[in-house]
Amino acid sequence: PRPPGPLSLTRAMDELLRRAVPQTPAYELREKTPAPAEGQCADFVSFYGGLTEATQRAELLGRLAQGFGVDHGQVAEQSAGVLQLREQPREAAVLLQAEDRLRYALVPRYRGLFHHISKLDGGVRFLVRLRADLLEAQALKLVEGPHVREMNGVLKSMLSEWFSSGFLNLERVTWHSPCEVLQKISESEAVHPIKSWMDMKQRVGPYRRCYFFSHCSTPGEPLVILYVALTSDISSNIQAIVKEQPLSETEERDRIAAAIFYSISLTQQGLQGVELGTFLVKRVLKELQKEFPHLGAFSSLSPIPGFTKWLLGLLGSQTKEHGRNGLFTDSESKELGEAVGGPVPETLKVLLSGSEWAQSEKLVQALQAPLMRLCAWYLYGEKHRGYALNPVANFHLQNGAVMWRINWMGDSSPRGLTSSCGLMANYRYFPEETGPNSTAYLGSKSIKASEQVLSLVAQFQKNSKL
Amino acid sequence: PRPPGPLSLTRAMDELLRRAVPQTPAYELREKTPAPAEGQCADFVSFYGGLTEATQRAELLGRLAQGFGVDHGQVAEQSAGVLQLREQPREAAVLLQAEDRLRYALVPRYRGLFHHISKLDGGVRFLVRLRADLLEAQALKLVEGPHVREMNGVLKSMLSEWFSSGFLNLERVTWHSPCEVLQKISESEAVHPIKSWMDMKQRVGPYRRCYFFSHCSTPGEPLVILYVALTSDISSNIQAIVKEQPLSETEERDRIAAAIFYSISLTQQGLQGVELGTFLVKRVLKELQKEFPHLGAFSSLSPIPGFTKWLLGLLGSQTKEHGRNGLFTDSESKELGEAVGGPVPETLKVLLSGSEWAQSEKLVQALQAPLMRLCAWYLYGEKHRGYALNPVANFHLQNGAVMWRINWMGDSSPRGLTSSCGLMANYRYFPEETGPNSTAYLGSKSIKASEQVLSLVAQFQKNSKL
Amino acid sequence: PRPPGPLSLTRAMDELLRRAVPQTPAYELREKTPAPAEGQCADFVSFYGGLTEATQRAELLGRLAQGFGVDHGQVAEQSAGVLQLREQPREAAVLLQAEDRLRYALVPRYRGLFHHISKLDGGVRFLVRLRADLLEAQALKLVEGPHVREMNGVLKSMLSEWFSSGFLNLERVTWHSPCEVLQKISESEAVHPIKSWMDMKQRVGPYRRCYFFSHCSTPGEPLVILYVALTSDISSNIQAIVKEQPLSETEERDRIAAAIFYSISLTQQGLQGVELGTFLVKRVLKELQKEFPHLGAFSSLSPIPGFTKWLLGLLGSQTKEHGRNGLFTDSESKELGEAVGGPVPETLKVLLSGSEWAQSEKLVQALQAPLMRLCAWYLYGEKHRGYALNPVANFHLQNGAVMWRINWMGDSSPRGLTSSCGLMANYRYFPEETGPNSTAYLGSKSIKASEQVLSLVAQFQKNSKL
Amino acid sequence: PRPPGPLSLTRAMDELLRRAVPQTPAYELREKTPAPAEGQCADFVSFYGGLTEATQRAELLGRLAQGFGVDHGQVAEQSAGVLQLREQPREAAVLLQAEDRLRYALVPRYRGLFHHISKLDGGVRFLVRLRADLLEAQALKLVEGPHVREMNGVLKSMLSEWFSSGFLNLERVTWHSPCEVLQKISESEAVHPIKSWMDMKQRVGPYRRCYFFSHCSTPGEPLVILYVALTSDISSNIQAIVKEQPLSETEERDRIAAAIFYSISLTQQGLQGVELGTFLVKRVLKELQKEFPHLGAFSSLSPIPGFTKWLLGLLGSQTKEHGRNGLFTDSESKELGEAVGGPVPETLKVLLSGSEWAQSEKLVQALQAPLMRLCAWYLYGEKHRGYALNPVANFHLQNGAVMWRINWMGDSSPRGLTSSCGLMANYRYFPEETGPNSTAYLGSKSIKASEQVLSLVAQFQKNSKL
Repeated sequence: PRPPGPLSLTRAMDELLRRAVPQTPAYELREKTPAPAEGQCADFVSFYGGLTEATQRAELLGRLAQGFGVDHGQVAEQSAGVLQLREQPREAAVLLQAEDRLRYALVPRYRGLFHHISKLDGGVRFLVRLRADLLEAQALKLVEGPHVREMNGVLKSMLSEWFSSGFLNLERVTWHSPCEVLQKISESEAVHPIKSWMDMKQRVGPYRRCYFFSHCSTPGEPLVILYVALTSDISSNIQAIVKEQPLSETEERDRIAAAIFYSISLTQQGLQGVELGTFLVKRVLKELQKEFPHLGAFSSLSPIPGFTKWLLGLLGSQTKEHGRNGLFTDSESKELGEAVGGPVPETLKVLLSGSEWAQSEKLVQALQAPLMRLCAWYLYGEKHRGYALNPVANFHLQNGAVMWRINWMGDSSPRGLTSSCGLMANYRYFPEETGPNSTAYLGSKSIKASEQVLSLVAQFQKNSKL
Repeated sequence: PRPPGPLSLTRAMDELLRRAVPQTPAYELREKTPAPAEGQCADFVSFYGGLTEATQRAELLGRLAQGFGVDHGQVAEQSAGVLQLREQPREAAVLLQAEDRLRYALVPRYRGLFHHISKLDGGVRFLVRLRADLLEAQALKLVEGPHVREMNGVLKSMLSEWFSSGFLNLERVTWHSPCEVLQKISESEAVHPIKSWMDMKQRVGPYRRCYFFSHCSTPGEPLVILYVALTSDISSNIQAIVKEQPLSETEERDRIAAAIFYSISLTQQGLQGVELGTFLVKRVLKELQKEFPHLGAFSSLSPIPGFTKWLLGLLGSQTKEHGRNGLFTDSESKELGEAVGGPVPETLKVLLSGSEWAQSEKLVQALQAPLMRLCAWYLYGEKHRGYALNPVANFHLQNGAVMWRINWMGDSSPRGLTSSCGLMANYRYFPEETGPNSTAYLGSKSIKASEQVLSLVAQFQKNSKL
Repeated sequence: PRPPGPLSLTRAMDELLRRAVPQTPAYELREKTPAPAEGQCADFVSFYGGLTEATQRAELLGRLAQGFGVDHGQVAEQSAGVLQLREQPREAAVLLQAEDRLRYALVPRYRGLFHHISKLDGGVRFLVRLRADLLEAQALKLVEGPHVREMNGVLKSMLSEWFSSGFLNLERVTWHSPCEVLQKISESEAVHPIKSWMDMKQRVGPYRRCYFFSHCSTPGEPLVILYVALTSDISSNIQAIVKEQPLSETEERDRIAAAIFYSISLTQQGLQGVELGTFLVKRVLKELQKEFPHLGAFSSLSPIPGFTKWLLGLLGSQTKEHGRNGLFTDSESKELGEAVGGPVPETLKVLLSGSEWAQSEKLVQALQAPLMRLCAWYLYGEKHRGYALNPVANFHLQNGAVMWRINWMGDSSPRGLTSSCGLMANYRYFPEETGPNSTAYLGSKSIKASEQVLSLVAQFQKNSKL
Repeated sequence: PRPPGPLSLTRAMDELLRRAVPQTPAYELREKTPAPAEGQCADFVSFYGGLTEATQRAELLGRLAQGFGVDHGQVAEQSAGVLQLREQPREAAVLLQAEDRLRYALVPRYRGLFHHISKLDGGVRFLVRLRADLLEAQALKLVEGPHVREMNGVLKSMLSEWFSSGFLNLERVTWHSPCEVLQKISESEAVHPIKSWMDMKQRVGPYRRCYFFSHCSTPGEPLVILYVALTSDISSNIQAIVKEQPLSETEERDRIAAAIFYSISLTQQGLQGVELGTFLVKRVLKELQKEFPHLGAFSSLSPIPGFTKWLLGLLGSQTKEHGRNGLFTDSESKELGEAVGGPVPETLKVLLSGSEWAQSEKLVQALQAPLMRLCAWYLYGEKHRGYALNPVANFHLQNGAVMWRINWMGDSSPRGLTSSCGLMANYRYFPEETGPNSTAYLGSKSIKASEQVLSLVAQFQKNSKL
């Protein structure tokens, strides 16, 4: 049934919520309460499904979060009970029960709704989409505030239990997989878009692997997808991997010495923060080690989203200051000046916003040294709360990879040029060291990097001191 | 590695727990803490697996529950914080965060251990077995106290999330199923034991159904099993169903008018309290309605464990009192006296402890009326905290079934005779009414029963008033 | 190993054949002769596989047929033996053995080669390709003569045993089928070419069916494919079926009243004459009756290849004769003259060779009546050895269909216009009557046709008498 | 419908055959003749299925063979045609067509019936059973004569095409296989009977393999079954393999050095003579080489059916002749005399008819040398038409195995003792040499044997010269 117009809509929402969100049973009866009638929670699902506008959905979620959270009075009362026992100690059983009552009081009422929805056919899938809506609504500021953040946290923690690694199946995609799966896979590939079905066939053919995690309750539905190229050494260029080329019929094992993770995509935005990507990388790594025990190198070939934007920001501030603040050495500035034929920062800012500059060999050559240096710094030195600012770097470093190599002209597609001046990065996985690396990064925030990267960073630091 | 001897064993346990149970990260770092090294939690699993004695395992679980629960100081501190905000209101965000900190403080530390174990290969299965051990240890009083009860509650709630109905697959067992599955099924059948493979073939053949739930991550592993007979009317006798007989080749749909649930078994004791049986009954009911839209009656044919014991208790107390307290009418007493040839209660007590009495036609006839009446009362009138005392009755009534019929000589096997004087009960499921019935039973504790049962109960009541 | 140059090639061929074609064992030893070494026949396969030119392959096949057939001397000798027994009768056993020896002598030696190849991995598939080559070579006159015809007959009869209907699996193609299967299907569709993967998705989606036969030893490999549209009545226009359109999500059973077979393709030319298509139509018909018991009409919607060619021939002869020979009535000739603006037969001949004429509404209208009539005659009246000249008509009539309807502008694609002036035909299958119809057609060559067709034929006959 | 009584039964048979056996079309129409109505051949199948007595079935088959074979007049006529062309040569096409007409005339009419039956659902399976009946009827002399032998030959050749190796699937049986398959397998094991399901579990568990061929059109239906034990060396004793023992959980690859084929069973007697066993042995050998590339020895451990019977025959003739004819040396005779305590041949004849003699250590020791020698001769020296008389030896020698070893007390079961005095034989397969060995055996009838066997044979020969 279509939900009614704006004015009556909020009234309909309130009525729905009153009807559909189950009462929290009294603590004593919590195990003896029958499940709400199936229809009760299904009502919420179908009402929500009928809301075609993002704003409407945001409105409903806001009302749910605000009006059906924790009963603060109950929490306070039970807290007082616990505190009193602290002052007048009784036997352990009494304290533990008081704490359990408090724990129970701290469960928001909407959790019951989500819990019951999860048991409906397709219910978990619905909650994943609901959380995707919630995240989007927060990003677009359609709905805000601590209650919504709390509800998001509750949902995320529920999803984390359900999508626990023990319940994920690794599936490999080949040309024998159902067309439906290949179509889904192809539609989800955002990093290096798939142009045609022959392109797809290549990405699952010889010297390539494509894996995904599905939940064991919904086999064939990709949650997160990882593409791998099997190569003779660590690739420095993405076009060599994704350009359409004549298909080899077969795979020669002894031509394979490296596995390059060249794309990873989360298909369900509602699962953000549920550590699927990390697990998938680790699992595929093991799978490949089993299939190719002689494999010597595992590495990503990753985009550097945000680098151009960051660089343009720097160039902009430099422009304003009309001074040299160490972006380029004197000789570089000179060479660049000749190549661009104008005031360096200003002109570069314009050029690097587009992708045509890559046509000029001169410019490409003049930019290589400074951009490599700046990019190394961007990845290694720029931080957010102590961790790498660049999200891709942060992902691989959390997984325990080493910041291995920065590649000039690693992605010469228009997209690659405009988002990261054509640069790409390798994050290398040494299977034995990912554990310690991960702990070091997450704990002491220290980044493990190769000599190439460290040397570029040192050049940057030396230069910016000038 | 084999755990060491008794004295050093407790020391080894303490050391293991110190090492294996992950620290709870500070609230602020809870999302940034890397997973503990895989080995850390695996250590616990292998140490535990090496404990061959139930007492040793109970000891370790007791220490885990006692020593790695909630930090009561933290809980009190955060409770105080919440209370303070109650008195000096600030913006919602502050209160919600204080509550969240309190919630976090209320999570016992061992939950982190279980959480990480669940991600290991076979981890969830390990936790199911661990909980089975815990329940057994509690039943045997190997370990006691509120901490252990709390830990059991935590485990149960984690298992409930993982074994949520959305993740259960209904599998049907046929003679085409893998032998491994049929062997497992056959070994799990406790109610009406399976004697041979031809017996098994019959139970999955024409006019029979056998279904189980498996978790979607471990297909082919039965968690809870339901046996169904397809009959022409509601069966009153179990031997007619499970005795070996020539196999029909085919099934004639129009000879099928009733579905009799004649056995349900939970294969994993660690999943007690996780509502698998109820869901399975409901799911199979739907499945059968789909396969046989014309099916008129759904009913269990259930044992009545405990009835003989209860009856012997009554007879005992009657013996002591040397009086008549309404177990039998005068004419019954007379008839029984003739049949047993001795003082009624005393002799009956001896006779009903065994199964030979069923050989005497006279006795069988003399006992029918009084035992039917007593049994009706036992099922309908005897309560535990307001719910039916008999666990099988309680299970079906919770599911919304009607107490339908009590069957004299429903199970004439030695087992049936000694545990329930050969009586069996039907609990009938009216698909449209299970919801209301369940709510009525769980809420107002009222039992819906057929006229036969109610009339027997009335006879009992009238008689015991004498 | 690459076969050598032309001169030495024939020598290499002779040497290969000498080596690879097994000796026919003496009659007495026929059961005791060990299989030839695997390599012996595999040699033939790999040599043949190395012949890249059709002419080379034809040469080899010609030499095989010519040089390794029946030993005519043996045949004559055994024939004489049989005849002698006819004159001097002995006991039955003697005659039967003489006949068996004669039968044995009549088996061409190359049959042994084919027999042994059939046992190699992929051997049967090889023989199917070999026969496809043989048929093509005959069509192109690369090789001729009775020996080659005989070998083709032997191969066909062997393939008929192997591809017997009992060994064919009916597979349904859906969007869940492996991409590999869908790609093969799509590449084999010659009648109404598939333009894109969305086009393919539509042809296996709601209101459509796509079935194929595979051999049970090679599941997933289509041998012959049948496309069906599920419609509300017998379709008269192919574009309504194959044009790309928004996909329905679901199928409403009660909107389905007819099943239209709109394309059938043999994927392996080597299986020509092995009655796959006929069986597939019958099998799918049964399948659809089972799925939709209420289905009222089964019919093909078929192209009429050759009609334009035949018509242009008629127009050409008419042109030469400068006379009217009954193609058009006077009023038609007048109307057509106005529409084409020139001498009718000559101009029409030019126009109907192309497809632009369909743009002129006037012309389309003027042509409808005469072309319908002519087409009816072409299908019903034109014969080859007494059977329908048009191969599609002949196929469906053999299957027992009724010539049901001729559809004006049934296929307005350029292809449809140029090959059959846009006309299409329905051959309708009445499930109960296909047997008798087939017998009547094959036996007495009588065509069962609808009133529409018969009336058009009558018009044609009446008109051509003028 | 039940066939009627004896008198009218033959009339009903004749009527059925007249109705059900399709007419052979004239040569010219052979491709244009519609298939007979489905019911026509199905009639035969159901009539035959209704014949419950073997004699009735034999009667029907005899009438079919006799009355619906080749038209001898046609054959003679066409033979004459061919001979005439021999005398008055015309172009090749004419001769080839005459030969083809003759070939066509030589096809018995009942072949058409079988051909059409093969296309019915379950038709091929029916024909396999029909041939089993035919073979049994011949063995029991229920039906005789050249027509029946011819029909058997026709059926065998048809079955050989259908059950060609390219259409056979190798399936491995494990404990995960459907119970139905395991039950079938277990019921078919005649060589070393399976006593219980745990026995079965062992035969498909660690260190064991069980494979079968199924036809690709009926997967899961075993046609011929091979059991393999994976051992450390070539087994000399069957009890070590088939006795029930505690199951190993796992298999250690490096404890496996030999593969012992210890049982092979044809499940369908109707497939006798269709070379399934030979192919299965070869295929399994390859499969095992792939799984265990290091495997050093492949050998059978085979029964020696008929040896006791042959030996008793010898002892009998010796008894009659009252003389020594070289069965035993003087010292052996003496030792045996002491052991049996009576006249040697007579007493031995009695003893060896039973199995108790194996209880006497003395006797066992005294018999070892002479029986080993006699058995070697029985296997190596006794022939039927030049090939080994013992069918098991003949089977393995045809496959190219070497007569490897004779094992004293290789089968101490009552069955083993009574059928072959407890002796068993190993036939060893050297994968590279089976081809040449097979050719040598089938061609020049020469048996390849090991030194042990040859030396025993030499002893026998030396001894029997005395």
